[in-house]
Amino acid sequence: LLILNGEPVVLGKESKLAKCIALMRSERKRLEKEGKRKEKWADSRVRIETENNFPTAAGLASSASGFACLVYTLAKLYELEWDTTQLSVMARQGSGSACRSLFGGFVKWEMGKLEDGSDSVAVQVAPSTHWPSLVAVILVVNDAKKDVGSTEGMQLTVASSTLFKARIASVVPERMEQMEQAILSKDFETFGTLTMQDSNQFHAVCLDSYPPIVYMTDVSRCIVKTVHEWNAKSGRLRAAYTFDAGPNAVVYLERESVAEWLSVVESVLPRSREQSEDVNYVSDPCGVLQAPCVEEVASVGLASASPGLLKRILVVPIGDGPRVVSEE
Amino acid sequence: LLILNGEPVVLGKESKLAKCIALMRSERKRLEKEGKRKEKWADSRVRIETENNFPTAAGLASSASGFACLVYTLAKLYELEWDTTQLSVMARQGSGSACRSLFGGFVKWEMGKLEDGSDSVAVQVAPSTHWPSLVAVILVVNDAKKDVGSTEGMQLTVASSTLFKARIASVVPERMEQMEQAILSKDFETFGTLTMQDSNQFHAVCLDSYPPIVYMTDVSRCIVKTVHEWNAKSGRLRAAYTFDAGPNAVVYLERESVAEWLSVVESVLPRSREQSEDVNYVSDPCGVLQAPCVEEVASVGLASASPGLLKRILVVPIGDGPRVVSEE
Repeated sequence: LLILNGEPVVLGKESKLAKCIALMRSERKRLEKEGKRKEKWADSRVRIETENNFPTAAGLASSASGFACLVYTLAKLYELEWDTTQLSVMARQGSGSACRSLFGGFVKWEMGKLEDGSDSVAVQVAPSTHWPSLVAVILVVNDAKKDVGSTEGMQLTVASSTLFKARIASVVPERMEQMEQAILSKDFETFGTLTMQDSNQFHAVCLDSYPPIVYMTDVSRCIVKTVHEWNAKSGRLRAAYTFDAGPNAVVYLERESVAEWLSVVESVLPRSREQSEDVNYVSDPCGVLQAPCVEEVASVGLASASPGLLKRILVVPIGDGPRVVSEE
Repeated sequence: LLILNGEPVVLGKESKLAKCIALMRSERKRLEKEGKRKEKWADSRVRIETENNFPTAAGLASSASGFACLVYTLAKLYELEWDTTQLSVMARQGSGSACRSLFGGFVKWEMGKLEDGSDSVAVQVAPSTHWPSLVAVILVVNDAKKDVGSTEGMQLTVASSTLFKARIASVVPERMEQMEQAILSKDFETFGTLTMQDSNQFHAVCLDSYPPIVYMTDVSRCIVKTVHEWNAKSGRLRAAYTFDAGPNAVVYLERESVAEWLSVVESVLPRSREQSEDVNYVSDPCGVLQAPCVEEVASVGLASASPGLLKRILVVPIGDGPRVVSEE
């Protein structure tokens, strides 16, 4: 039985989660047979209650992180001896990008060369503690309902975009290399430039699909423009956007720039009257914005859009992987 | 002296038009010297009054057609013996795509192979009379002011898009070939598919530029979606969009589909109250929609957007090249 955000969900035998559970159960059974686990309950039914406090179906990898958590927790429950890489391979069955979410910090997903994809695995580039000054400001756009799911969209792009092959063959491998170096040397300028270029190119091949896939909206594009204007005005790269399969932006900044960036966002994409009174409009669960924070007023000379185009703002440092927070 | 839409314009010596005039003047002088023209006035100053009744700076090739007209008219004035191809080469100096506008009907612009671009010329594929049932419905989007000019934008794309090379090397040549065949055989399905795919890919490489160039807006994307939905609902390709360097759509249809398409557009992008009373909102200068036109009511099941997102609609058949309409 699966309880998802309080609602019971019927899990088909063919569902990705059911398949994962079946695999883990048979692994537990093996351990029990070999006498490595004394309690024999591998065949018992499991009841999963899951809750997601992150915007779902908004192209913010909520299903990837959620699936990674489920796989991690089930492996704990069944007391399996799998390492993170094995869990990552398991998670990849549920959602491609879930393979990355098992690791914390900076993670790359290697394409692999084998036909069956078995060497397409995620590898940690650096732990979450590696670059403590790096912060992500997530701008959640109001209306974020996806037309096209990310897995479905990717399949259409692979099948129909004539530019996709060129991207994979001649752009991605070199960029992966450069990005890894930029992260290891904490080179924000290179990290940010590559992040923006690759986000744009991902959306370019989506648009080159047939029929075209468009995840970004005018509000997304307003954020793109604001980032470039602010960087130009600052005389150096201070913010870098990336958009996944949805209109919401993840903007990377050094911690010292966050307060000023939030004031730039407020000036270009102001909150509505109701949002002004909402203390949760900007949430900072990990205390990136230490009080007392002097609010710097910044402007990039762009006209204000109508209020309320953003739904909320999340400020987060580079996170860790899944973790047990309490055992009952 | 240049009078542009009633306003005098100072023409720099280095301006593209001034250079064209200088070249034509010296050609006239040569003809005069050789006694081929009796009246000797090559050195006289010229006064040009020009008016453009088409939306300008909106990515609808108004400057290309305008420049082509200027070159054509000046060649008439100077009584030069240049053929359309020579005029086309001249026009290309002013605006790349102006080279196409000298010809009527269906025109291709060959890339050429020479370093100096001298073999990059426009060639007529078929005259305007070739496919009389083909109609273009131009949806002019409200707010159509371009951020980035098309020439400037193209230069940035060539310099910074890593996908641009792949497009030019492996996609465009084959598509040009297929498109020419589709036009010659009046194969609307192939013509329309290629038109949409190539429009999307052009905007994809714009987005892949750095900083990214975005010409389309949410209204453009709404038109894209409406076209695909309507085609799907009709069970065949009836409409095909293309977007140039701006948010406005050119939608190609067979003449018999135009009335129904206009009713689809009205249902998805309705006019404002003021626009309902404006008889010029839909203009049909060449009488494509012959009265009495039974307005077919069609729906694609998409929700109506807020009224007034379109500025106006133009219905035109495939046009002819520049022409002398009166001599004074």
